[in-house]
Formats: sequence, C-alpha cells, structure tokens
Amino acid sequence: MTTPSNRTDDVRMRGFARRTTVAEAIGWLDGRVQRLDEELLPLRGAAGRVLARDVASEVDVPGFVRAMMDGFAVRAADTAGASPYHRLPLAVVGESMPGRPFAGRVGPGQAVRTMTGAKLPDGADAVLPVEVVEIQGDRILAAGEVSPEKHVGRIGEDIQARSIVLAAGRRLRPQDLGLLSSIGAAQVPVVRRPCVRIVVTGNELLPAGSKPQGTKIVDSNGPMLEALVARDGGLAVNPGIVGDDPGAILDALRSPSDIVLVSGGSSVGQEDIAPSLVTEHGELRIHGIAMRPSSPTGMGWLDGRVVVLLPGNPVSCLCAYDFFAGRAIRAMGGRAADWPYRRLRAPLRRKAVSTVGRMDYLRVRLIDGQVEPLAIGGASVLSSATRADGFVLISDDSEGYPAGTEVEVFLYDT
Amino acid sequence: MTTPSNRTDDVRMRGFARRTTVAEAIGWLDGRVQRLDEELLPLRGAAGRVLARDVASEVDVPGFVRAMMDGFAVRAADTAGASPYHRLPLAVVGESMPGRPFAGRVGPGQAVRTMTGAKLPDGADAVLPVEVVEIQGDRILAAGEVSPEKHVGRIGEDIQARSIVLAAGRRLRPQDLGLLSSIGAAQVPVVRRPCVRIVVTGNELLPAGSKPQGTKIVDSNGPMLEALVARDGGLAVNPGIVGDDPGAILDALRSPSDIVLVSGGSSVGQEDIAPSLVTEHGELRIHGIAMRPSSPTGMGWLDGRVVVLLPGNPVSCLCAYDFFAGRAIRAMGGRAADWPYRRLRAPLRRKAVSTVGRMDYLRVRLIDGQVEPLAIGGASVLSSATRADGFVLISDDSEGYPAGTEVEVFLYDT
Repeated sequence: MTTPSNRTDDVRMRGFARRTTVAEAIGWLDGRVQRLDEELLPLRGAAGRVLARDVASEVDVPGFVRAMMDGFAVRAADTAGASPYHRLPLAVVGESMPGRPFAGRVGPGQAVRTMTGAKLPDGADAVLPVEVVEIQGDRILAAGEVSPEKHVGRIGEDIQARSIVLAAGRRLRPQDLGLLSSIGAAQVPVVRRPCVRIVVTGNELLPAGSKPQGTKIVDSNGPMLEALVARDGGLAVNPGIVGDDPGAILDALRSPSDIVLVSGGSSVGQEDIAPSLVTEHGELRIHGIAMRPSSPTGMGWLDGRVVVLLPGNPVSCLCAYDFFAGRAIRAMGGRAADWPYRRLRAPLRRKAVSTVGRMDYLRVRLIDGQVEPLAIGGASVLSSATRADGFVLISDDSEGYPAGTEVEVFLYDT
Repeated sequence: MTTPSNRTDDVRMRGFARRTTVAEAIGWLDGRVQRLDEELLPLRGAAGRVLARDVASEVDVPGFVRAMMDGFAVRAADTAGASPYHRLPLAVVGESMPGRPFAGRVGPGQAVRTMTGAKLPDGADAVLPVEVVEIQGDRILAAGEVSPEKHVGRIGEDIQARSIVLAAGRRLRPQDLGLLSSIGAAQVPVVRRPCVRIVVTGNELLPAGSKPQGTKIVDSNGPMLEALVARDGGLAVNPGIVGDDPGAILDALRSPSDIVLVSGGSSVGQEDIAPSLVTEHGELRIHGIAMRPSSPTGMGWLDGRVVVLLPGNPVSCLCAYDFFAGRAIRAMGGRAADWPYRRLRAPLRRKAVSTVGRMDYLRVRLIDGQVEPLAIGGASVLSSATRADGFVLISDDSEGYPAGTEVEVFLYDT
C-alpha cells in the first residue's frame, strides 16, 4: 500500500453531500493498491497463482536426442532404396527404451529397437517406424527409407536452456505446472495472496450456522465475503462478527492484514461507527458513491492499509465488493483487475430505467435468450441476487434502455 | 459407476484397427459415469460445490416486520396532512435498533426512533424517514406524510418458510452461501468430490521437483493432471509415479477411487502395460480414437470403475484429459460436463488443415484479434500448449478451414 502523496487531486466527500462517481472511486482505489511481494511455493501448490518473476529454464528439454516414434534407430543411409519390393536387412544389436538407453553405438547395417521418448543411440541418425519393418528374429527387413533426422527430436526442441519459459504476471495453468516440472522447477516464485481482514459489524447478528432468533438475524455477509475473497485469490483472515463497539472495531481495523473490508455500519446513521473510526484514525477518502445499490460505500486508509466500508444490506455488500474490494484484492494478488464473470450480449425483455448521475447494478435473469430485469425487492433482499443469472450495468450517463436494447450481461455462474 | 449392461451396442475396438470417433467415445463415457452421492459440508466450505438436493427454508427471512429506512416508526394516520409548511408533533417514546427492539407499543401521537433493519415496534405501521423530520429533544416534527406499510419490510419478504431457496444441481455461488446462512443452514448437502487415482507410468520418469538427469526426464503429466483434476472439482488421491511394472500398475488400478487416470503406456507398444491389464482384469472398451493428438487414448472399466488411459506425450495427455477424463470428473461431481473454458469467435490468420475422419485439437494464439495456429512441434512439445492462448477444434467431417474463416476458440486462461 502506498500512502497518499498528493491531497489536492483527491476526491473528498463529507457525508453524502456529493456522491463520488464509480469511476472516480475506482480511480482512487487503483492508485492505492499495488501488487504484493512474492513467495516461493512448491510447484504442486501453484496452480492458479500468479508468477512474480519470469522463469527461465536452466536445462534443455529434452536434454538428449530422442526417438519420436516406436521403431528402429538406424543410419538413414542404410535405408536408401528400401521399399516393400526391395527390402533391406539390418542386424538388431540392442534396444533403447525411455530411461534405459542403448549403451553401444549403431554401426553400418545395424539397428537398435527403440521406443518413443527413448534416447537415439550414438551412430544412429533416424528412426525407421515399426510399421515399415518386418521383424525376423535378430534382424529386420526395412521396407521403406528414411532421411536423416526423420522421427528424431533434437535437444532443446521443447525448451532451450536459458530461455524464459513463462513470464511474470502469468496465472499458472495446469500445463504450465507440467512445463515447470519438466525443467526441474521444485519451487515457483508467485505473488503472495492478499490477507483480507473481514470485519462484520452489527449487534443484531448471529454467527453463520446459527438459527435466526427473534430480531436476531444470521450473518449472511461474512460467509458471502469469505467465498468472494477466496474466488478472487485472497485469504480471509480471522473473519467473524465484531459487535458495534468502537474499540473492538478499531482493533479489527488495525489487526495485521493487507486490506480490510468492513461490512455494515458504513452509512451516516448513529451506529455507523466504522466511518468515524477511519476518519479519526486514518483518512476516509470516499464516502457515498453515485450508484444503486451500494451508495453508502466508503473507502479510505488506516495504518497504511486500504479499508473498504461495505454496506450491510447483502445485495449492496455484494455489489460494492464486486466494484471495489474484489478489484483491489485481484490486483494485489497480481490478477487482472477485471471481473471474473463471463459475459454475453442479449436483448432486454423489458425496459430498464435508471437516473442520470448514478450507476445502476441491475440483477437480471435470462429467459429464452432475453434479459429480464428482476423487479423484486431492494438491496436487503439477498434472494434477488441468488435468483438472478447475473447483472447488467446502466452507466451514470444513461437514463436506462428501452425493451429490445442489446445489453451486456455479467454472469454470476463463473 | 454402472457396469455395462448391454454389450451389443458398445463400440469395441481391438488394437487400433479402427479408431473410435470422439463422439462415440464421449457417448460411451457419458453412459458410464453417474453423479456421486452426497456429503454434508459446513456452510463455509461449500463455495463452488454442487447441491445434491433442493434446500428449503425452515424460516421466514426476515422473521419479523422490519424498518427499511432510518427514521421514526409511527402510525401512518398520525402523519396525514404533514408537510414542511404544516409540521405535526409526535412524542418520541423510545428506540428500536437492529437486534434490540423497542419493548413497548407505539400509541397515537407517538414515535419510536428506528434504524434500517430494526423490528418495527408494535402499534406502528410505517417509518417516517429521518429526512422529513425535525428533531426537538424528546419530540419530533413530521414534515411529510407516509402511508401505511411505507418503508416497512414484511415477514418473509426475502425468503418464505417452506420455499425452496436453491435447487439440486446448483453450483454454489458466494451469494448462495449468504442466503443459506441467513436461513440458518449450518451444513449443506453437496455432491461428493470424485476421488481420482492418477497413475503415472514410465521408468524414465523422475518425480516432480527433481532435476532432469541424462535420459531420465521429470514427470510433467502428474502435476498437470493434479491441477486439472482440482480445477474440475476432483480430489487427486495418492498421485505419483508408478514404474512400468504390471503388479504395481494393477495395484494402483485397484486402489480405492471413483475413477482412474493412467498416464503413459497407453499405446500398443511392448511396454504399454496398462491396456493389457485393463483387458485382462476388466474390459478395455475403447482403444484408439480418431483424433490428433491423443489417438492412443483408451477407456474401459475395472472393478466397476472407469479407467481412462491417457497418452504419455504431454500435449496428448492434456487433450485426452480435456476431451474425456475431465468431462467424466465434472459429471461425477455434479458439474456441467462442458468445458470450463471461455470461448470467443475470431477469424483464422492462416488456413488450418485437417483430415476427414479425425478430430483435430489445434493449439492457437490470438494475434491482433485473429487466430494463429501454432506450427511448432508435435504432441511431445508441452511448450506448444503453454505458448498457446487456447485451442480450436476441427471436426472429423472437415478438411480444415481457409484463412479468414471465423472459428470458435476455447481459451486456456479460465
């Protein structure tokens, strides 16, 4: 995390007198988060992680000339003129198997039985495929000819020593692990996973796994945020409910982490403690964003760490996470900042109404290839985000779209 | 796993005399794999898992009438006619906070300070937002009127008791965990992860983490397959190298698992032990597939488990995994059988040549929005699959496509 160096160009809001635009908030955030440092991981734990540095190979792969077919290692010249009608005899003097090379040398008129991947014996320069050979005891009859280098893989054909095999920033795919293994990499330098302190506030909350009782409700944002953080490559540290107590919340804000997410109490009401704490002990740079839902979102920093204040309403919490917190976590972990959601384009079944000056995050369903905005409920209705197939954005310069407009849908089902 | 019940409609191949088509092989496999049974998981470990049963709520959410705004709980009738020019006084008799409801009852001419999410006190039927109120000590002046039910959330607004909140087969999203938490679900019934025995054969192989030495090469398929299996929701059990010893390979084939993947030795060469073992102790139903790479792929069953024989060449191994093994693993875990790869359509920069009767899996790069087939190397060159951005399929009824043809690209970077 960098500490802000230039206060004059910052977008500062007090209360919700003026709401920051989504673009401004993202701009502030992008300027404040940095890719984390590296850690060395055993190869087998590195799938999906992001390379912190270029990786070069110390070795050629393969490190020896190899047979690329099952057949017989020969001197190509010995097969000149061979055909089904003019078969040429060769003496079989041994075999070369993968990992068990032939110890001798192939002389004129000789052949060594060989398998794909085995070392080509010294003296041989080609592989005569088994399909063009008749085997007769300890000799073969070549029924076809091969040219030098035929069915032979050269040293470094796959990877050359000192070449860069994978570049910094690469998110490691399964085949990348195979490649790294083949060059003898036991450990790989990857970007450290961001440690994300999730602070769920609210005296009305019972921990996940409880039954709702009377006016006590069960925390839904905690489990949701943990899953979102894991999806985006972060490591949720010490998640759990913190009561609406300023001391406890401040302790949580200051506990070791790379970024802090606070759920609930992000508005300007009497019990909205977190914004006051960030203002008092750090700096609350953005508070109130021109979007729906999630307008009570806040951002700032404290003890050098970015703090994102997420609204307590679960849909607002999801939306604010997706716009801001997830972006920051992905970037810190070296991933692309963009959403991990798949996208498609489809026409609206009904008009979608918004207001200029506000970004709308509209939950939608796909019905017969068309986009149906969900009419149900507000930001407190989490089932609107589980019934939805995804969401559509209506930008802050738009009043919405008439029915039939083709829109881009971000699909929740990644 | 089912045991094949009808042998007459099976596609049986002996050796590679005739190669099975990709579609036939998928058809056989799809008929043999079934979704696994369920297990109960704590909610917090369930993200990304697949629901084994419908989940119904035992409770209404919310379970009480709640305020949807910060303000004052009132009897709506008491605000009739209130406006900025005709402000009506109400006595503040207490407060209702989230989790700490007002114990009394709101009478005529009374108001109770309330916050979003708090229980609406008995006697009140609406919330007067704080924005239309002037606070004067222990009374307020209402400067606007509200109708009954205004800013009030009803019982079961989010979720109704006895309703199905998430259906069997759902892959759980972060917001689904939030929803399940809110209904008091401590555990969720999910499809068990398939246990996948990965059997890597080859005397020439050193374990991942070693340096290549002489003609010994380092296993690349093991780490790659482990990552692929994890990506597709499987659990790699006891992965590692098994020498080319029939007894050791048979033990591995018979060790407890839901499906077995064998890498290497799947061809018809002298040291291709696995196909013989499956033939002898189970049934090798498919051996040799009309595709490039990966033609030596085999499939069968042994001890009631599906066995997929993957070629040892790393690109062939990746391709055969993607076409067959991954599909089976995803289906057993309750996921969609389709590839998890993102897709895009773009024109070919160069022609792509194939042969009728064979499916081609062509590694490609995207260059300036166009699709460039990678010319490099064969199936033994793993770097061709790490340099590629994805792949294009050329179906077995096609001789390929001329330059400029728009093709579908499956992107490795998921």
